[in-house]
Amino acid sequence: MELTGLSFIGTQRGSRDGASFQAFAPQTGDPLQPVFRSATPQELDHAARLAAEAVASYSQTSGKTRGAFLRHIADGFESHRDVLAQRAHLETALPMPRLTGEVTRTANQLRMFAGVVEEGSWVQARIDPALPDRAPLPRPDIRSMLRALGPVAVFGASNFPLAFSVGGGDTASALAAGCPVIVKAHPAHPGTSELAAAIINESVIAHDLHPGVFSMLFDSGVAIGTALVKHPLIRAVAFTGSLRGGRAIMDLTAARPDPIPCFTEMSSGNPVFILPGALRKGPAALAQSLFGSFTLGAGQFCTKPGIVFLAEAPQSLAFRDELKSFVEQAHPFTLLTSGIASEYHRATDARATQVSLTVEPHLSSEDQNGSEPFHAQATLFTTTLDQLLRQPDLADEIFGPETLLVRCGSTQDYLQAARALAGHLTATVLGDEDDLAANRELIHILEQKAGRVIFNGFPTGVEVTHAMVHGGPYPSTSDPRFTSVGSLAIYRFARPVCFQNFPQTMLPPELQDENPLAISRLRDGKPE
Amino acid sequence: MELTGLSFIGTQRGSRDGASFQAFAPQTGDPLQPVFRSATPQELDHAARLAAEAVASYSQTSGKTRGAFLRHIADGFESHRDVLAQRAHLETALPMPRLTGEVTRTANQLRMFAGVVEEGSWVQARIDPALPDRAPLPRPDIRSMLRALGPVAVFGASNFPLAFSVGGGDTASALAAGCPVIVKAHPAHPGTSELAAAIINESVIAHDLHPGVFSMLFDSGVAIGTALVKHPLIRAVAFTGSLRGGRAIMDLTAARPDPIPCFTEMSSGNPVFILPGALRKGPAALAQSLFGSFTLGAGQFCTKPGIVFLAEAPQSLAFRDELKSFVEQAHPFTLLTSGIASEYHRATDARATQVSLTVEPHLSSEDQNGSEPFHAQATLFTTTLDQLLRQPDLADEIFGPETLLVRCGSTQDYLQAARALAGHLTATVLGDEDDLAANRELIHILEQKAGRVIFNGFPTGVEVTHAMVHGGPYPSTSDPRFTSVGSLAIYRFARPVCFQNFPQTMLPPELQDENPLAISRLRDGKPE
Repeated sequence: MELTGLSFIGTQRGSRDGASFQAFAPQTGDPLQPVFRSATPQELDHAARLAAEAVASYSQTSGKTRGAFLRHIADGFESHRDVLAQRAHLETALPMPRLTGEVTRTANQLRMFAGVVEEGSWVQARIDPALPDRAPLPRPDIRSMLRALGPVAVFGASNFPLAFSVGGGDTASALAAGCPVIVKAHPAHPGTSELAAAIINESVIAHDLHPGVFSMLFDSGVAIGTALVKHPLIRAVAFTGSLRGGRAIMDLTAARPDPIPCFTEMSSGNPVFILPGALRKGPAALAQSLFGSFTLGAGQFCTKPGIVFLAEAPQSLAFRDELKSFVEQAHPFTLLTSGIASEYHRATDARATQVSLTVEPHLSSEDQNGSEPFHAQATLFTTTLDQLLRQPDLADEIFGPETLLVRCGSTQDYLQAARALAGHLTATVLGDEDDLAANRELIHILEQKAGRVIFNGFPTGVEVTHAMVHGGPYPSTSDPRFTSVGSLAIYRFARPVCFQNFPQTMLPPELQDENPLAISRLRDGKPE
Repeated sequence: MELTGLSFIGTQRGSRDGASFQAFAPQTGDPLQPVFRSATPQELDHAARLAAEAVASYSQTSGKTRGAFLRHIADGFESHRDVLAQRAHLETALPMPRLTGEVTRTANQLRMFAGVVEEGSWVQARIDPALPDRAPLPRPDIRSMLRALGPVAVFGASNFPLAFSVGGGDTASALAAGCPVIVKAHPAHPGTSELAAAIINESVIAHDLHPGVFSMLFDSGVAIGTALVKHPLIRAVAFTGSLRGGRAIMDLTAARPDPIPCFTEMSSGNPVFILPGALRKGPAALAQSLFGSFTLGAGQFCTKPGIVFLAEAPQSLAFRDELKSFVEQAHPFTLLTSGIASEYHRATDARATQVSLTVEPHLSSEDQNGSEPFHAQATLFTTTLDQLLRQPDLADEIFGPETLLVRCGSTQDYLQAARALAGHLTATVLGDEDDLAANRELIHILEQKAGRVIFNGFPTGVEVTHAMVHGGPYPSTSDPRFTSVGSLAIYRFARPVCFQNFPQTMLPPELQDENPLAISRLRDGKPE
């Protein structure tokens, strides 16, 4: 697979007319070959028209057809595991084992959605049969099921160059739902993006699908992404990234002449509450696990624990000292982009003027901004609950290997702390089962603040399963009713359509009386 | 039940401090007693705080508790059927049989949602059990289910003073989901609103629920509604009304510091496509049914057929003549408010300058705006497909007894017409089964344009069932993934919450291993 640096406009390649840009190796800051070309507005429009054309045939394909297509893509990812991981390693400096694992995760995500649509019950078929003898008026036959929304714009994320990028969870769930996809590739890993797009493109061709089912656009700036979100033929948007970027996309979709569904996954502090039982099990082990979690992937996970509530307890001081020592001994981390690194330095410098900086950074400002522009030191801040309540922006996410320890008088203060939280992807409680039982009210508050409540685990592990929720109230996402991880993610891209009084032969198979697909359905609200 | 003219702030009555207003009898234009008082901003804030306080207990009530509460409200509506219908008749001039039927519908809606939450499977419980032996890492136990969003703001609609107002479908589905509700009553039927609120309030007290579970605010203008949508403690909004009002609410929710879920049901032309078989069955009967549908409730239904596509065919001229004759012979209609009537006159006058007015109105402009300000004549416009394609605003909804006949050369033109449609609540095809089979492509296009596709029926009948979809792409609603009628409407007000690694005793019953509620669940993605 040779990199060309060009977009995919359906199954064709884009031109060399757009602005050029390159990826950078975060380890050295050096530019990487080849040169990439931004898509032009004409190419974007062409991709959108192709996608709209593809809706008629693609949205009506069977679950089996889409399942086979997704499995073909998954096989393509796995058979190009090394080349994908190597290029991603060059572009992101994430470790090779993590990246080869991310290929597997990406393939598994695709196969999970394949399984969902092959089985078919996800469409939530409902049948309310006619009641011809009902008085005063007969009831007509009413049947409904989910149908694809139409062309979806997907924005690749910087921090998962495979699993949340071109062929990642957003693309997989949108394609599974029957929606054509146009990906705006993240400019930090364009080579990985091109490889992934080539794999998907090959599957589109192999399965003889309409060429508009998949396009991928490069852009070094925001012009193409903005135009994509505003394009009249786009029917939904999915984005994973910063609060600033995500909110900008939300605002663009809301300001359209015809606002469209938009799911942005943006910013989360992932609060952790430490209860006495967790400290009794040993402060050193707890500190090590927490350090591991907030520095995993250089702290660039959506679910990084960025706020840790610690009540006064016999071993809380020992825990703080252990945590401090892990941070002090940590080697510098390499961040994904120079932009992320400089924002990390800006944000940690700003926070250091507001709260105690528990560990002085090893790197001087000159090192940070000069010879090693992508590097960053782990940072541990400490504050009090009172100060946090007075300055709620201390809870704002800092993307990178940083966390904020919030000292509380007692675990009773956790209720006040929890009530003051904004929306988060996760909330974690560490302790023993007696702690948990004694803190039911805390759990009930956290349920309202987060998409996932974790007991005795760390939030950075996000399983791709049927029950997973990777979502939560704003600002963690744009809409708390959806998730971007797990099989529920497909529901972002489908809408119910009702067929009234249709003859059997004109109904989709999902709604025909004989239930040829043998899916789970509701008849008059009850399982058949 | 004595009317006081005061809001309900939880279980207390509002003050007399706000601006006063009165309802008007549409038949005569005379003001009705008593005088009503707008809620004050302080009262709104109090209601919102009460609602937020109520979340902790109300959102954790069992489905059985909420079901009993909803059934109590339903019984209250039915036991006050006459007083509700009589007051609604005074305030809306809708016929008594329609209004007593609307009481039944309202009660049935409440009982349908009671049934849904009593049965319990609506929460979509999913269990992915722990895999302690999985390599390279064990999988934790992951379980998820739907939980209430929090306080919901509901805007009563003008055209269904009971079924889409204070105790209507939005309130019923939000209360069923476990959300406290604050209704902004429609100022055109404040007496009906107060009666309905008193019934709900009585049920809150009878079931010993937190007083913040339900409030109802009066306002003659838009200040309280605007402040309600912007209030930081409100977590979702539901609205039924005009495109202008609905879009204003969408824009307000999108501009919040923390945007929240918003479902507005706004504007729909409900296109009808007439195929040859429908004309062969008899043009007179078809014309009569269509006339009945577009003038039902004085044409003030969300699902009024406002655009009718008619291809040249042997009997199409006869059909047009029959329809014209029904319109000519129609008595004037009484509209709900003077605002709706004057907007109807403005919009029909404007359209008359653009297209042919098939029937001259009986009423002079003076009559319309003078002595009988709420009255309006049925109006039939005719245009051609070419003109409609050049002037898409001809498809804009006119609220009232009006429809637009669009002449097409042949049924082949219907494909182009359908592709040019914006989003609608419904799309209807009239013909025989051979027509339907010959027009599969038309059906596939209409599926993408509407929430409900009807064969040989009229869209004005909206059944309240499990399979009903009363939704559709913008501008018919703000989000095509939801519906405001039918049991699916509950999903507007709930979000998935995931519990990771929780001990059995700390899980909600819906997620406990032994399944004490005996609900349908997915285990590892498969029905248990």
